[in-house]
Amino acid sequence: MRECELLSRIYERSKGLSTQFPQVIVGPGDDCAVVEASSSRLSLTVDQLIEHKHYLGNGQTPVDLIARKAIARSISDLAAMCARPAWSLATAALPIDYPHASELFDALHHWATHWGAPLVGGDTATSPTGSPLVLTVTAAGEHSAGFPPTLRSGAQVGDEVWITGKVGNSLASGRHLTFEPRLLEAQWLARELHGHVHAMIDVSDGVGRDASRIAMASGVEIELNASLLPLHGDALNPIQAASDGEDYELLFTVSPNQMSQVYARSHGAHALPNGTLFTRIGCVKKGQGCFVLLDSKRMDASELGWDHS
Amino acid sequence: MRECELLSRIYERSKGLSTQFPQVIVGPGDDCAVVEASSSRLSLTVDQLIEHKHYLGNGQTPVDLIARKAIARSISDLAAMCARPAWSLATAALPIDYPHASELFDALHHWATHWGAPLVGGDTATSPTGSPLVLTVTAAGEHSAGFPPTLRSGAQVGDEVWITGKVGNSLASGRHLTFEPRLLEAQWLARELHGHVHAMIDVSDGVGRDASRIAMASGVEIELNASLLPLHGDALNPIQAASDGEDYELLFTVSPNQMSQVYARSHGAHALPNGTLFTRIGCVKKGQGCFVLLDSKRMDASELGWDHS
Repeated sequence: MRECELLSRIYERSKGLSTQFPQVIVGPGDDCAVVEASSSRLSLTVDQLIEHKHYLGNGQTPVDLIARKAIARSISDLAAMCARPAWSLATAALPIDYPHASELFDALHHWATHWGAPLVGGDTATSPTGSPLVLTVTAAGEHSAGFPPTLRSGAQVGDEVWITGKVGNSLASGRHLTFEPRLLEAQWLARELHGHVHAMIDVSDGVGRDASRIAMASGVEIELNASLLPLHGDALNPIQAASDGEDYELLFTVSPNQMSQVYARSHGAHALPNGTLFTRIGCVKKGQGCFVLLDSKRMDASELGWDHS
Repeated sequence: MRECELLSRIYERSKGLSTQFPQVIVGPGDDCAVVEASSSRLSLTVDQLIEHKHYLGNGQTPVDLIARKAIARSISDLAAMCARPAWSLATAALPIDYPHASELFDALHHWATHWGAPLVGGDTATSPTGSPLVLTVTAAGEHSAGFPPTLRSGAQVGDEVWITGKVGNSLASGRHLTFEPRLLEAQWLARELHGHVHAMIDVSDGVGRDASRIAMASGVEIELNASLLPLHGDALNPIQAASDGEDYELLFTVSPNQMSQVYARSHGAHALPNGTLFTRIGCVKKGQGCFVLLDSKRMDASELGWDHS
């Protein structure tokens, strides 16, 4: 399919976007999209999804799941900031013989709309046969009153460290393709714990490495208790689960006893109405670095995880 | 260079961004950047720059010019909307043995800052040896009062068609790497001709094809006079120049006699204080399509130009 045909199809499908999403003033098809922000403060993220690297290539991964993951990763970043998705843009560098360009853009459109960040613009280009398919998704989210950005740098000594859902074995299990970005959970935390969630990150490179990032950005020490980590049934062990990447759960620090005041404690695990597990897995201390305790060992957590280079 | 080292350098260099650009609340290094928009209406664009396709690869193009072009193309899109650059994000899929990652990001940072769209976020990843380098730049611009977006769809019957600068032979001459996005010219047009510039586009795929896009979006016919096209000295002929892509000049339609009221006419060419040429090259008529007149021939302009697929 030539680019102009592909673009025509994208423009055609985008008609009516403004009706469904009033923030979209001009959708795909001009030099730029035009949007109307309902909040002046925006969170912005861009991520790449590269064939063979972020998903199995050569047709082994369904097109719909490739598009889903590309969008979901950026939406997960917005969730980690406690931002409400507003709009997105996508690019695709497609090997010249790639047969599913149109389905891919249909799926990108579908998932972007699904999470409230309609695809307002993009770019397609061809690359030589044999090149990996490269997708990028830029997404923006808005911060309305009462929902300020939750940065990595806000952790305070004395905070508890919590995590949503379960972790471990995301790549091998295929969950890295089907995870649900924790948008509702982030909004719930902001609403229920107003001002008490001090730092937040989405776990993409492993609990250990990502908790280390909060520790470093905040100038504190984080101590995680590996035995408290909520593991998926197919996860090998807590240390492996703390090293695995691509969980896309929210790891956050919160003033002591705030979570327990919202839900009655039950073996360290709490549930949202929609069933999402919340688990306390550690604490914030004076010091620096991040350490994982298991039995009598204390490991440097910054080495547990993937450097996605 | 490992991704974490590259990112450290990017974060280090971005310190102080908030001082220079008050719209940057949180720069690179968190899950998202956070910006404060001073206008609720934003123009958004994303473009890819692919090695071998948009520039000569294998080290034949200086890193600084690769970065410059990647940023400049998106800034040119903002200019075509009459938007004031506000911020940008960039991604790079770098072949694993690519030796200039850090210089490339330094240069992206430099040019983004130069045009007033500081790089607030991005993503780097490696691709297999032999893959083309793929850059993307997402840029946003603001529309303050009196500077509404100039769309492709606004051309009116009776309008004159004008173009900035000169066209032709951009690729062979290397000008596609060094063009100046027409930001000042777009702002000048909005200020001097308030409300009379009805449609605008930046010429990336050739004057013929891009004028056709205005004609189609506006539901009008555009007639261009090839003999009026302002050609670079090394351009072969008007038809070739109308077909060449990558000029990144602004092509716009404006109410009749408005341009001549701003500047005294002199052989069809007008000059801005900073020396940019403005030339009337055609007119908007009732009908559909875009045609180029040369001697007694009338050619369908939609076929003159590049399909950048």
